[in-house]
Amino acid sequence: MKNRLVLLRHGQSLWNLENRFTGWTDVDLTEKGILEAQRSARLLHENGITPDVAFTSRLKRAIRTLWIALDELNMMWLPVYRCWRLNERHYGALQGYSKDEMAAKVGEIKVFNWRRGYQVRPPALTLDDPRHPRFDPRYADVDPALLPSTESLHDTLQRVLPCWTGEIVPRLQAGEEVLIVAHHNSLRALIKHLEDISEEEIARYNMPTGYPLVYHLDQNQRPVDRYYLGPADEVKKAAEAVYRFPKILSGQ
Amino acid sequence: MKNRLVLLRHGQSLWNLENRFTGWTDVDLTEKGILEAQRSARLLHENGITPDVAFTSRLKRAIRTLWIALDELNMMWLPVYRCWRLNERHYGALQGYSKDEMAAKVGEIKVFNWRRGYQVRPPALTLDDPRHPRFDPRYADVDPALLPSTESLHDTLQRVLPCWTGEIVPRLQAGEEVLIVAHHNSLRALIKHLEDISEEEIARYNMPTGYPLVYHLDQNQRPVDRYYLGPADEVKKAAEAVYRFPKILSGQ
Repeated sequence: MKNRLVLLRHGQSLWNLENRFTGWTDVDLTEKGILEAQRSARLLHENGITPDVAFTSRLKRAIRTLWIALDELNMMWLPVYRCWRLNERHYGALQGYSKDEMAAKVGEIKVFNWRRGYQVRPPALTLDDPRHPRFDPRYADVDPALLPSTESLHDTLQRVLPCWTGEIVPRLQAGEEVLIVAHHNSLRALIKHLEDISEEEIARYNMPTGYPLVYHLDQNQRPVDRYYLGPADEVKKAAEAVYRFPKILSGQ
Repeated sequence: MKNRLVLLRHGQSLWNLENRFTGWTDVDLTEKGILEAQRSARLLHENGITPDVAFTSRLKRAIRTLWIALDELNMMWLPVYRCWRLNERHYGALQGYSKDEMAAKVGEIKVFNWRRGYQVRPPALTLDDPRHPRFDPRYADVDPALLPSTESLHDTLQRVLPCWTGEIVPRLQAGEEVLIVAHHNSLRALIKHLEDISEEEIARYNMPTGYPLVYHLDQNQRPVDRYYLGPADEVKKAAEAVYRFPKILSGQ
């Protein structure tokens, strides 16, 4: 069956484990992340999903997740496009900092807003910061004016959209089944767009690592069905574990 | 420095080890093949070669060699194109047979001619043979009339050329450094073309696994220099070990 889109968040990374702001920092998968990537492939296989093309970011935690999945599926030959626009949300000068330490320093509410405020941008990298993507050979082919110094989720969505409309939608319209392996926030941005979710609601949406999310789309790329692969209780638990809202907000 | 082209033969495969005709059969690397892929990456790194784009076949021994190299080079983000036209020479109905057993059965000269006669085609797969590439999902996007049932080296070259001229040359002309990870015979065919080697001479040309071959090309893609990376004596020994000419011919 065609007109299916599969979204997969990469497996656990080292900085997921250490609970650090990662953004465009190119950290690798943990052992658990590798197992999660293998589980994703098993779930795709068991559900008879054989994509025609795969899109991923230029960050190795996503690419390695895809490689592991393609290897398990015996589909290493699949065409793969590495799009910088599918990179994780850029976390600016927060990248590398522990989320807990930062909360202790500036307060839970401020960190919550950085993480989940739709329009909130963390402090930016300065243009001469050696960590700025304009110095990174990965993005040498990209107009430096397009490369972010920090991003809100809204910025991330604006940056993802040209890849979605320009590269992915034409594949879907040609009847191809598309697999996207990307990141928590670049996928949340895309999900917000696909499902027309409000800014308030998307703040509460968590995507678990290593469980594929399948969409059936109509001819205008509106979802007619969506479901995670895997046991529902397991997926729910994994999604809830992604981020526990600050106690001060959990009464809302 | 640009206008460089790097050719890399995949590391040892299971059927290299077992000395079987492989062709389009999708066998994987051996442990030794994995080490050879890692060595290739080390040689590229030590020689300061950082490709801008990589081309490979749709066969996993080549793709895995490339993956291992990109991982070692910390360049997993590099754009990769998987071209069926870079696949190994199709060995027809010989695929899977032991080269030694076949020589014992039909004679060394016949096997030599199958392996090294430029215009010689091995017996073809029948069109309804389930191993025929037209039944393989890897090639579902290719016009079935273009998919081989058997090939001479000449046929392989004719099949490789549209990928060379149509996809790779434009990259070189744009100043990009191109890495091609492919197979003994698809690379020998390309080398014959690049260097304008005669049909007789190319029969004696062996390419070792896991040593990158670097070309410096002029603006018309004619070689102005070429060299293998790695200690010259080691490369020579590895190339000689690829195929020892039958004793009956070695006096020529």
